[in-house]
Amino acid sequence: MSKRLKDVGESAVLRLARKIFTKSKIVVTGIGDDAAVLSIGGKFFAMTTDMFVGKTSIPQIATPEQIGKKAVVINFSDLAAVGARPIALLFSIAMPADFELSSVERIMRSMEKEARRYGACVVGGDVDEGEDITIAGFAFGIVEGKILARDRARPGELVGVTGELGSAAAGLDVIRRKLEEKRFEPLIRAQLEPEARCVEGIILGKCKGVTSAIDISDGFAYNLWQIAEESGIGITVEKEKLPICSLVKEYSKSIGKDPYDFALFGGEDYELLFTIKPSSLSELERKFKRANRKFTIVGKTVRGRGVWISEEGKVKRLPKIGFEHFRHNSQNL
Amino acid sequence: MSKRLKDVGESAVLRLARKIFTKSKIVVTGIGDDAAVLSIGGKFFAMTTDMFVGKTSIPQIATPEQIGKKAVVINFSDLAAVGARPIALLFSIAMPADFELSSVERIMRSMEKEARRYGACVVGGDVDEGEDITIAGFAFGIVEGKILARDRARPGELVGVTGELGSAAAGLDVIRRKLEEKRFEPLIRAQLEPEARCVEGIILGKCKGVTSAIDISDGFAYNLWQIAEESGIGITVEKEKLPICSLVKEYSKSIGKDPYDFALFGGEDYELLFTIKPSSLSELERKFKRANRKFTIVGKTVRGRGVWISEEGKVKRLPKIGFEHFRHNSQNL
Repeated sequence: MSKRLKDVGESAVLRLARKIFTKSKIVVTGIGDDAAVLSIGGKFFAMTTDMFVGKTSIPQIATPEQIGKKAVVINFSDLAAVGARPIALLFSIAMPADFELSSVERIMRSMEKEARRYGACVVGGDVDEGEDITIAGFAFGIVEGKILARDRARPGELVGVTGELGSAAAGLDVIRRKLEEKRFEPLIRAQLEPEARCVEGIILGKCKGVTSAIDISDGFAYNLWQIAEESGIGITVEKEKLPICSLVKEYSKSIGKDPYDFALFGGEDYELLFTIKPSSLSELERKFKRANRKFTIVGKTVRGRGVWISEEGKVKRLPKIGFEHFRHNSQNL
Repeated sequence: MSKRLKDVGESAVLRLARKIFTKSKIVVTGIGDDAAVLSIGGKFFAMTTDMFVGKTSIPQIATPEQIGKKAVVINFSDLAAVGARPIALLFSIAMPADFELSSVERIMRSMEKEARRYGACVVGGDVDEGEDITIAGFAFGIVEGKILARDRARPGELVGVTGELGSAAAGLDVIRRKLEEKRFEPLIRAQLEPEARCVEGIILGKCKGVTSAIDISDGFAYNLWQIAEESGIGITVEKEKLPICSLVKEYSKSIGKDPYDFALFGGEDYELLFTIKPSSLSELERKFKRANRKFTIVGKTVRGRGVWISEEGKVKRLPKIGFEHFRHNSQNL
């Protein structure tokens, strides 16, 4: 009997895609990275697509504005991860026939506003009928510095991450447990209204010593593994250094859960994880400070294969757990 | 009570989109045409998205190869309509968890093969879980001649169409009536395996006298109306001149239906409809002949507003009937 997607998971589809789709000369970065990058007429153009399906991906409390915003941000985050400035956005949207026109209007107004905030604009779209609301976004941008990719980290570098970790996953937990208290609202917003780190991505791309980058959509641990595996290196991170949002700690305490679970395995923070040569650290600090943005060095790259986490001097292997479509329980792959 | 999509139809969403999404300086063609065109560094880049949802858009007899092929072609057809050569394709695909991995592989292999046939390649994608198979394609190309658009026809020009009309709609009818006889197989193939007229689109874009173009996805009559309305002109076509596929005539006879219904109102032929100045006709004929491609002059543009069809000297208004999502009966809008 033929294998079904629930037996093999999303990663099997991605492996197939890499095998089937071949690159042509102008494709610098193809299948497998956050965004594809094409070299045309001396410029590097980045393009990516990210889709979400109502029932499986959108919490019911999300407003049309939040749905529109997230559709834009998850695509621009992919551009940020390769160091591209967003230029244009297109989207295909499927909706049930009894969907309200006013909701469609609110989704579209939010997309327009959000695209503009990043200096881009919505240039096209397609509308279809479907049983469940489904939005596929397509983002197009220009790489301003060098192209960032996942597979170029080398041993002896530092591992950094922008912003803070854990808020989006904690926010999803708040929504699921229906603990919608006022003080946890910022967590819910982090889940429903994430930001794309485009300014940060462009700075990273322009900093010579930055060697690799990826956006944190599938979970910090999972994305660390992706950098390590694609680059053929090892990574060690120090648990104490992880920039966990203080509200995540407060929320975790209130429900008796470990905040590191949200920060390491939760996903959807849309921060950028990157590697940088130690000699370039002060340059990057200067540039981030000037742009009023934040990053934290959380570990380093080493020889070997795998990802380890250290806590009070003890080092253990960080499990490769993250979100994967079709497999409904996160698991150690 | 708020209006629902089934009350207002797809066109209301498109009107909203045009109102909401504003253009930026680099956008030459924005919302409302087959593809968006951006001007960057002296080059014109075209981009478009087209989505289809399993239950509403894919006949059950379609093979995975046909699904993959059609996902590519409907997007490249939009590029053809603005005169662009396809360069790259991305796709977002949602599937149920019990979908077979081997079917996904067949869809992807077909996409790769098809993209290559048009000189392009698949550079990215996203995989999600959804109840129904849904594929959103994004195509990216370069305009080689001038940018073709819908709104630039003027009175006193000729109206032409590539290839033949009616096959795809007749094919859908064959499938629906389950009349899958061997002799009608080419009609079924026309429905399930259309071609994108990219070579024709590039030739049209390079012919100075061509003034407007659109691809025939919503039905010939509907697309004639779109050219007329967007350009603010009238169009008259001669029924006798419409290049109806002979097998469509044969099939129509066998079921007692008027073949012109398929040709005028059926849609999905993915041919190109265009307008051209009479002085450039011989140039276009030469170029099409050299490329071994076909077009037919079927009418002319006139002053006034509307679309008329003449038959044996009698002229009547051609109803603006076509396929529209959310409205389940084709109707005179």
